[in-house]
Amino acid sequence: MPSDLVSILRTAKSAAYSGGHVLHRYWHEGVELRDKSDIGGKSYDLVSDADLESQSVIANLITEKFPDHELMGEEDLVGDTGAEHLWVIDPLDGTNNFLHHVPHFAVSIAYYRDGIPTVGVVHNPISGDTYAAVRGEGASHNGDPIGTSAATELSTALIGCGFYYDRGAMMRSTLAAIEDFFGHHIHGIRRFGTAALDLCAVANGMFGAFFEYKLSPWDFAAGQLIVTEAGGKISDAQGNPLGLEPSSVLASCPGLYDAALAITSKHHPA
Amino acid sequence: MPSDLVSILRTAKSAAYSGGHVLHRYWHEGVELRDKSDIGGKSYDLVSDADLESQSVIANLITEKFPDHELMGEEDLVGDTGAEHLWVIDPLDGTNNFLHHVPHFAVSIAYYRDGIPTVGVVHNPISGDTYAAVRGEGASHNGDPIGTSAATELSTALIGCGFYYDRGAMMRSTLAAIEDFFGHHIHGIRRFGTAALDLCAVANGMFGAFFEYKLSPWDFAAGQLIVTEAGGKISDAQGNPLGLEPSSVLASCPGLYDAALAITSKHHPA
Repeated sequence: MPSDLVSILRTAKSAAYSGGHVLHRYWHEGVELRDKSDIGGKSYDLVSDADLESQSVIANLITEKFPDHELMGEEDLVGDTGAEHLWVIDPLDGTNNFLHHVPHFAVSIAYYRDGIPTVGVVHNPISGDTYAAVRGEGASHNGDPIGTSAATELSTALIGCGFYYDRGAMMRSTLAAIEDFFGHHIHGIRRFGTAALDLCAVANGMFGAFFEYKLSPWDFAAGQLIVTEAGGKISDAQGNPLGLEPSSVLASCPGLYDAALAITSKHHPA
Repeated sequence: MPSDLVSILRTAKSAAYSGGHVLHRYWHEGVELRDKSDIGGKSYDLVSDADLESQSVIANLITEKFPDHELMGEEDLVGDTGAEHLWVIDPLDGTNNFLHHVPHFAVSIAYYRDGIPTVGVVHNPISGDTYAAVRGEGASHNGDPIGTSAATELSTALIGCGFYYDRGAMMRSTLAAIEDFFGHHIHGIRRFGTAALDLCAVANGMFGAFFEYKLSPWDFAAGQLIVTEAGGKISDAQGNPLGLEPSSVLASCPGLYDAALAITSKHHPA
C-alpha cells in the first residue's frame, strides 16, 4: 500500500475510534436517562450532543493531520466535492437506534481522492466491529479479509433494506419492492436501521443485497468502497454510479446484482 | 423467591448457556464453511446439526435434574401441555440469521407450572446478552432489572416486526400493518429476525412494540414472561391471551398497547 494511503487509513481509523469513544460515553448516559423518562426532549438533546461532539473530535483529528483537506459531513460540514482531498464523515449513523438504546450504530469515515472513494472505515463502538477498505487493497473486518456472498439465487439470500424518513410514496415503493423480493422466495428481509453497517453486511456476506431509496452521501461513502473492495457491486437503485449527492442505493454480491436491480428499479420512486 | 423456583431458574440458565455453547462452536465452523462456498447443502446441514445438538444438551440437562418434567420443543419434543411441570424449548431461534452468519440468534427456555409461564430465559451466545424472568419477581438483562418503554405515542417509538415463512396473504398483512404504523409516524420499523430477542427488545424498552402474525409457542414462551415481568403487555395480535398453540403475537409497553393492537388486529390475516 502506498505510504500516503497507510497514513490516511491510520488517521481514518483513529478518527473513527475517537468518534466512537464519544458515542460510547453518551450511550451510557442515555441508558441512565432512559431509566428515568420517556424518549423525549432530553433524549433528543443527548443524541444531538453526541452527534456534534463526535463530529468535532473527528474533524479536529483529521484537520490536525491534514490541514489542507476538505471535510464534508452530516453536521454542516460543506467541503468542496471537487477537491483533490475530501473526507466524507457521518459521526453517528443509526441515530434512531442510538436514541432507542439499540446497540447497532456506527461512525462512518471515507476519504475521496479526486472524487474517487479511496479509503473507508465503518466502526460500531458498542460491538467493536470495524470494517475498513483501501482502494485496490481489499476490505477487512477487524483486520480479517472479507468477501461478499457467493449466492446466485435470491432464494438463498437475506435482503437488507432501509426506509427513508419519507412516509409517503417512497415508503410505499420500499414496501412494494420488499413484496417483490418475497415473491422471489428470499430467505428473509432484514431492517437493522444503520445504512453504513448494512453495506458492511453485504460486504461480509450476511446480506445478499441491500437497498434503500434515499441516502445521503455520508451514509454510503465509506460503505460503498468496503462493498466494492469485498468483491460486491454498488450503484443507485436504477443502476447508475453513485456520486456525492443524495441517492438511492443498491449494494449486492455479484451473483444477485442483476436480479436485485430488476426489482429495485421497477419500484423506484419517480 | 421460592427455593424450587431458584433451582428451576438456575437450571434454565445453565441449560441456555450449554445450548448456547453448542451454537457458538457450530457458528465458528459455519464461518469457515462460508468462506469456501455458497449457502447450500452443507450450510443447512450444519444449522440442522447445531439445532439438534443444542436441544439434546438442553433436554439432557433438564431431564437429569427434573426427571418427571415434560419437555416441549421445536425439534420433535411433544411434551404434555397439560402437565404440572412443562419446559418449552427453542434450541436455536433465528435460524436464518445463524445460517447467514448474522450474530443475532438465541436459545429460548421457558418453564410452565400448571400451564402458567413461570420462568423464562433467552440467551444470545455471541453477544452474551441473557434475559431472564421469574413470575412475580421481575425481569433482568445480564442481572440488571429491566422495564418496558414509557412511551405513550406511536410517534416516539421503534416498532419491531417479523414475517412468518408464508409468502402470501400473511406477508401482505404484515406489510399492510407496517404501512399503517408508518402512517402513525413511528420512528421506524425494525426487522431483526429472532422473535425471542425481539420480545426482549420490548422488555428492555428498545422497541415500543413488536408483532408477528404467526409464531410457534417455543418462539414466545420465554419472551412473553420476560415482557410481562418487565411491565409490558402481550397477547395475540387480536388481543386474546397466548396459549401453547401457534399464534399471532403482539407485545408492547403499556402506553402503546391499545394503539398497536388497533393496527395489528385491523390487518390480522383471516
